[in-house]
Amino acid sequence: MPATWVPNVDPASEFSLANIPFGIISTPADSSPHPAVAIGSSVLDLKVLAAEPDFGKVFPSLQDGAHVFSANSLNAFAALGRPVHRQVRKDIQELLSEGTAHAAFLRDNAALRERALLPQRGVKMHLPMEIGDYTDFYAGRHHAYFLGVMFRGPQNALQPNYTHLPVGYHGRASSVVVSGTPVRRPWGQILLDPAAEPKVPTTAPCRRLDIELELGCFLCKPNEMGTPVGVDEAEEHIFGYVLLNDWSARDIQTWEYVPLGPFNSKNFCSTISPWVVLADALEPFRTKGIENETELQDYLREAREDNVLDIRLEVDITTPEGDTTTISRTSAKNLMWSFPQMIAHHSLGGCPMRTGDLLGSGTISGTEASERGSLLEISEGGKKDIMLCGMDTRRFLKDGDTISIRGRCGGEGERVGFGDCVGRIYSAIQR
Amino acid sequence: MPATWVPNVDPASEFSLANIPFGIISTPADSSPHPAVAIGSSVLDLKVLAAEPDFGKVFPSLQDGAHVFSANSLNAFAALGRPVHRQVRKDIQELLSEGTAHAAFLRDNAALRERALLPQRGVKMHLPMEIGDYTDFYAGRHHAYFLGVMFRGPQNALQPNYTHLPVGYHGRASSVVVSGTPVRRPWGQILLDPAAEPKVPTTAPCRRLDIELELGCFLCKPNEMGTPVGVDEAEEHIFGYVLLNDWSARDIQTWEYVPLGPFNSKNFCSTISPWVVLADALEPFRTKGIENETELQDYLREAREDNVLDIRLEVDITTPEGDTTTISRTSAKNLMWSFPQMIAHHSLGGCPMRTGDLLGSGTISGTEASERGSLLEISEGGKKDIMLCGMDTRRFLKDGDTISIRGRCGGEGERVGFGDCVGRIYSAIQR
Repeated sequence: MPATWVPNVDPASEFSLANIPFGIISTPADSSPHPAVAIGSSVLDLKVLAAEPDFGKVFPSLQDGAHVFSANSLNAFAALGRPVHRQVRKDIQELLSEGTAHAAFLRDNAALRERALLPQRGVKMHLPMEIGDYTDFYAGRHHAYFLGVMFRGPQNALQPNYTHLPVGYHGRASSVVVSGTPVRRPWGQILLDPAAEPKVPTTAPCRRLDIELELGCFLCKPNEMGTPVGVDEAEEHIFGYVLLNDWSARDIQTWEYVPLGPFNSKNFCSTISPWVVLADALEPFRTKGIENETELQDYLREAREDNVLDIRLEVDITTPEGDTTTISRTSAKNLMWSFPQMIAHHSLGGCPMRTGDLLGSGTISGTEASERGSLLEISEGGKKDIMLCGMDTRRFLKDGDTISIRGRCGGEGERVGFGDCVGRIYSAIQR
Repeated sequence: MPATWVPNVDPASEFSLANIPFGIISTPADSSPHPAVAIGSSVLDLKVLAAEPDFGKVFPSLQDGAHVFSANSLNAFAALGRPVHRQVRKDIQELLSEGTAHAAFLRDNAALRERALLPQRGVKMHLPMEIGDYTDFYAGRHHAYFLGVMFRGPQNALQPNYTHLPVGYHGRASSVVVSGTPVRRPWGQILLDPAAEPKVPTTAPCRRLDIELELGCFLCKPNEMGTPVGVDEAEEHIFGYVLLNDWSARDIQTWEYVPLGPFNSKNFCSTISPWVVLADALEPFRTKGIENETELQDYLREAREDNVLDIRLEVDITTPEGDTTTISRTSAKNLMWSFPQMIAHHSLGGCPMRTGDLLGSGTISGTEASERGSLLEISEGGKKDIMLCGMDTRRFLKDGDTISIRGRCGGEGERVGFGDCVGRIYSAIQR
């Protein structure tokens, strides 16, 4: 990867020239949300660029850059398809490289640089995509196994269908928010004493508020109703990835989820990181997922083995007092199902998927105690204190706690990351 | 209700002057989908009306009728809120009444009449709303009980949470289609012998393709994330109602649904009727739902008792040979939870709901054998033949079968109905 002429790009930055993630910003000069990419501690405003007369010369693959880059979501850009994303990312990398062929367009154009290259801390980030439907899978086998042991013992930890199909459920698109959005502790129906008979619930603020460390995947290419996506074609349907914290109300979940699945325990908020890292930027970090010894149905058999991504994931909790503890370190490779398998399964019966749809991986946990992606696992079902810096402990989240997830790949100078996926817990509303 | 000057409005029509349902049409003169209302066997093209200079005099409550009535969905109109829907429906009733004060605008204006009042059979109906999220409830107690008996016996037929909260799950918005859209038999993972161990699925076309007779409810008023809707305010959030056939693949469902709920068994297609009957048009048909003896949580207690709608529902099946049999006759009053209760529960934890969101009631069945809303119930779990006209039988749907649902209230001359909710089964794709 060549060096960039953009000033102050720290070699440790997750927004190296090797990344070029896309997001939606608003700026002091333009309060209408619009596309940008991140580079070092700056953003490059694509709407400003696209208004330049020579834009078409620098980005010949974009027939209508002004339209795509003045939209308030990335959907129009995503809909152009993988070959265009690939070329535009290359064109931006070239534009920002020291020896760029287009030096006159931006590098040596002080007036444009001043309008287009802005400090990240001076812009506001918005939800990057208009999400039609959101589906959450359960592909983190270690997580599923750990929860299964907790609820049903080691003999029946995984349901019989678990290794045959990527289990998933439809989530709530309206509740997906961008990093930084306040997370309100939900009220819900809760069984205070689950063992008591008859079972009589109480309506109260959630007492077992949890996180779920996930990878999110945005789709770019739609399929028509009735037409499944083949597992080896599914990669062409993937726009890019974000970090996803699928906040979960465990006490509400326990009472509500039989027989139709999680509902209010999940639909109050799901936080995603602000930058969509293009699928192409993550190609170098492909690896093999968790082995599945079950003989797969044909439609789930992939030609390639390196079907998941080795992204280093970290979860920090910061207490209201300001003490920060890293409570989990794992990798996104801890999935037993790949996103192409999820897409092939999701569309098997003909379900139409659209540009902007979001798929969640399910909670990602490793095998070790330090690698678990939910507090429910770390606290072993809420039975064990999690020790925090500042002499504090947690089993579940307290009001004022902040959770921050990071995801990074690659080494210095060519690091690829997502930006923080952050949410702070606010007290339940007064009723 | 006064008489209408519109020609050929049959006294038996479900689109009487007392109805005035809203839909989205395209016409020979204007192929861009846009709003209309139904009257008798005609439609009144609202986009054509709104382009008239005197439109504002006839519809003083619509500040920007040209905008609202040139949109390709009813969302903009719905977002104006219940008081505006009420007034506009009244204004249309007045406009179409014999003694209208605005005779010069339409009744006596042959040129406009010719462009605005079109035969229904000459227009194409489209999905009436842009659906952000679709949630399907399970409020039909007789249905839930019948299925529970089938799976768990009469002692444990209803799950412990059933009478405490309206159980529901997030559905797939992208798979909701308008009446008449072909229904492709889905492929899926199926256990051919559910009793065999180990459980090994087959990938095959669904063999137990079913219907679910439901009422759908469209929302007009959003709530902010974190702000629940009170049960007695929820009525103001309801735009109107449609019939809903939530096609279901029972064999796929059985294998996939534990622990996260139905997924591919439901997301291949859900059909709605084309006309949204405004909540106000159904006010005269309010009644009391199924008694719930459980003491309700405060947030679910409604001030009014007549909280459901007595809509006569009928399900017809037409075989490929053209023989039609009515296989179910019931009423939409067979719900134990009202839509205001569903909305209050859905938003209890702060889930944001948006204009255009669709809520399904869950399958509606009465207590009698002739009143069941799914083939699974009518065929007693697929064990008993359903006798059809033409010496034919069914347990589940065959390719070429057509299902048509109707819903009607009120008597001759003031009937309120939805139009047909129709879908024909096409054979599974070749793989």
